[in-house]
Amino acid sequence: MRFANPELHEQRRRQILVAAGGCFAEKGFHQTSMAEIAKAAGLSMGLLYRYFTNKDALVLAFAEVSRAQSVAMFEALATSAQPRRELAAMVKVLLGEVLDPALLRLQMEVMAEACRNDDLMTALRREDQLARQALLESIETLRKRGLAKPLVSAPALTELLNALFEGLTVRLAMQPDLDRKRLARATMKTLLALTGVGQR
Amino acid sequence: MRFANPELHEQRRRQILVAAGGCFAEKGFHQTSMAEIAKAAGLSMGLLYRYFTNKDALVLAFAEVSRAQSVAMFEALATSAQPRRELAAMVKVLLGEVLDPALLRLQMEVMAEACRNDDLMTALRREDQLARQALLESIETLRKRGLAKPLVSAPALTELLNALFEGLTVRLAMQPDLDRKRLARATMKTLLALTGVGQR
Repeated sequence: MRFANPELHEQRRRQILVAAGGCFAEKGFHQTSMAEIAKAAGLSMGLLYRYFTNKDALVLAFAEVSRAQSVAMFEALATSAQPRRELAAMVKVLLGEVLDPALLRLQMEVMAEACRNDDLMTALRREDQLARQALLESIETLRKRGLAKPLVSAPALTELLNALFEGLTVRLAMQPDLDRKRLARATMKTLLALTGVGQR
Repeated sequence: MRFANPELHEQRRRQILVAAGGCFAEKGFHQTSMAEIAKAAGLSMGLLYRYFTNKDALVLAFAEVSRAQSVAMFEALATSAQPRRELAAMVKVLLGEVLDPALLRLQMEVMAEACRNDDLMTALRREDQLARQALLESIETLRKRGLAKPLVSAPALTELLNALFEGLTVRLAMQPDLDRKRLARATMKTLLALTGVGQR
């Protein structure tokens, strides 16, 4: 579909994603209807359907945004002259004070839904695969540039780092009173130990 | 409530939990009714309600079983003469071939539900707190016994290990074709590096 005004299109798309994210996080994926999302976004149903044909398409859009952010971070890491600084920036994104609790709830919701929805899982796995591929290439590039010396093989380190990042998200959801600053320092130390950045 | 036959009681309780776990994992928490759980367990509604008054009580029972298993592992770790062996056993439980995909789906489902259900979250946090306390004590005991030298403070290590364990569960759900053996070896190496067990 083509849109006469790309700027308005992009703005509306974001507006819908924010509204849908709020609804999913608050009520859950299944208990939210497209009508409620339209209402929350302040749009007609007809207009909403021009952007997203169903709730799966919305969830997938979240995953695409998240993957694009991850890939950008991993690419910055690969080409950085000071990978330690990029790792610190990643920890800040992951454990920063600005992280919205609603976003954490949304992530849990998406994972739970994908576990029961094969089409969605297939689409999410594609996004996940793209992000992991970027992380793997980043680690291998740093290693070749002599700026990293991973504790384990690059593919295994990719899975471990992914698991750690995801697990930290779960921890933040489970422990809102968690000492983020202490955890950020410990995470940084762990990342340096695992990647061997700036150490060997 | 008292039961005339404790053995039958325990057996039925397990029977209900298995049935409920299957329903939640397959259809999701909200889309499963108590009637469906009763049917899957082969019990009358009246009998089911004698054991669990609602779905939250079922989810909490899963969390209690899981917490008891974790606490037992952490206590074994604290008192072990060879903590390296206990860590290897933990990795085996976490990444073992026997892990049921339905169990992974159930875990995602429980976390997602808890993010929207304050009573359930409060109850789950209590279980989570008990497991984390056991892990923290285990790390501190090992350190005092001179068998561990954590890379970061014991409280921070507790959070990091928890995050890693949970994240690995998410990874298994997202990547069914993941090379578990390779990941298990890398996880073990990571645990040794983080805990300093058998190394310093």
